[in-house]
Amino acid sequence: MSKVFFDVGMSLDGYIAGPNRGPKNPLGDGGPAMHEWIVRTATFREIQHLGEGGETGSDDERVKQLFGRAGAHVMGRNMFEEGEANWPEEAPFHAPVFVLTHDQRAPWVRTGGTTFYFVTDGIESALAQARAAAQGKDVRIAGGAYTIKEYLHAGHIDEFTLHLAPMLLGEGVRLLDRFSRDKLKLEQVDATGSELVTHIGYRVVR
Amino acid sequence: MSKVFFDVGMSLDGYIAGPNRGPKNPLGDGGPAMHEWIVRTATFREIQHLGEGGETGSDDERVKQLFGRAGAHVMGRNMFEEGEANWPEEAPFHAPVFVLTHDQRAPWVRTGGTTFYFVTDGIESALAQARAAAQGKDVRIAGGAYTIKEYLHAGHIDEFTLHLAPMLLGEGVRLLDRFSRDKLKLEQVDATGSELVTHIGYRVVR
Repeated sequence: MSKVFFDVGMSLDGYIAGPNRGPKNPLGDGGPAMHEWIVRTATFREIQHLGEGGETGSDDERVKQLFGRAGAHVMGRNMFEEGEANWPEEAPFHAPVFVLTHDQRAPWVRTGGTTFYFVTDGIESALAQARAAAQGKDVRIAGGAYTIKEYLHAGHIDEFTLHLAPMLLGEGVRLLDRFSRDKLKLEQVDATGSELVTHIGYRVVR
Repeated sequence: MSKVFFDVGMSLDGYIAGPNRGPKNPLGDGGPAMHEWIVRTATFREIQHLGEGGETGSDDERVKQLFGRAGAHVMGRNMFEEGEANWPEEAPFHAPVFVLTHDQRAPWVRTGGTTFYFVTDGIESALAQARAAAQGKDVRIAGGAYTIKEYLHAGHIDEFTLHLAPMLLGEGVRLLDRFSRDKLKLEQVDATGSELVTHIGYRVVR
């Protein structure tokens, strides 16, 4: 059975995006610094067409696995709009992407296997379509911050990985701010650190 | 120069103690579950006279280093009062402990090298006395939650380690809730995980 997962950068004070978010500032003020580790990796640079170079090693392997694991992605409208303006012609998903939106639109086909489908009837519908499209592979809730929170609160997440950055944001969108102690039970399945980040994997216990 | 450090268990939603704290419930509701990893170690069981057994391995080595590193401890009144009722005759510090309190009291000498000194003139005074007593070794801010926060906010902490537990508390005392983005700059110096916890070490950048 395919798993539903997300992975997200988080500041040490619990924020997955800084303040003043919007389509042109999707990670919020200060947010991009959380992702410094991924921007340094060779795989991310290649996928995003950021130019030659980048680091190989354990962080790079992690990025490869992450993008290889997902058979389909689900994405919020803000993340899509920011990406639409910035992704290279060969968008970095190489799989179907289901975009949560209020505006009907025909599928948008990109080179390299990425097609964006626009879903106007809610998160359950987007997830069901992504599951079907993933053909047994896992479904990634790609972001942004509120979309991840919505799926987590609705109980649809099986596993997630936090990339915990050694920095504070002070304000913004917290991942875990509306949970009671008993609402989300976790099992830690993986923890590795590098200089810029600690990756911690969790399984949701049901 | 001796360093001032703390180490503390933290839930994934950022709490270092649960709600309803007090001298008889120093970690708050749900708080003790954060510390399951340390209670399982052989060293902690020995220090706290919890009986034979316990696990050796990397978590156990960490506990040994932690207690071996401190030449003196600083402690808040709640933590002291709870400990006073529960520590074994041979208190688990084997070093001078400076207790922040409003009540004057003569030093309390325990077997095994632990003497509690009661400091009534504030956190700076307690730290100065602890530094002098540590004789070049490091000073540990032992707890509880508010005492650690006070020293962190006052800018006295050089290094700290979080023991991040795979659980939520939902409410209680957050470690990092009154910091702005620029007030606390960190460098990650260590990250290792086991099944029950992720240990992450930080250096405060000045």
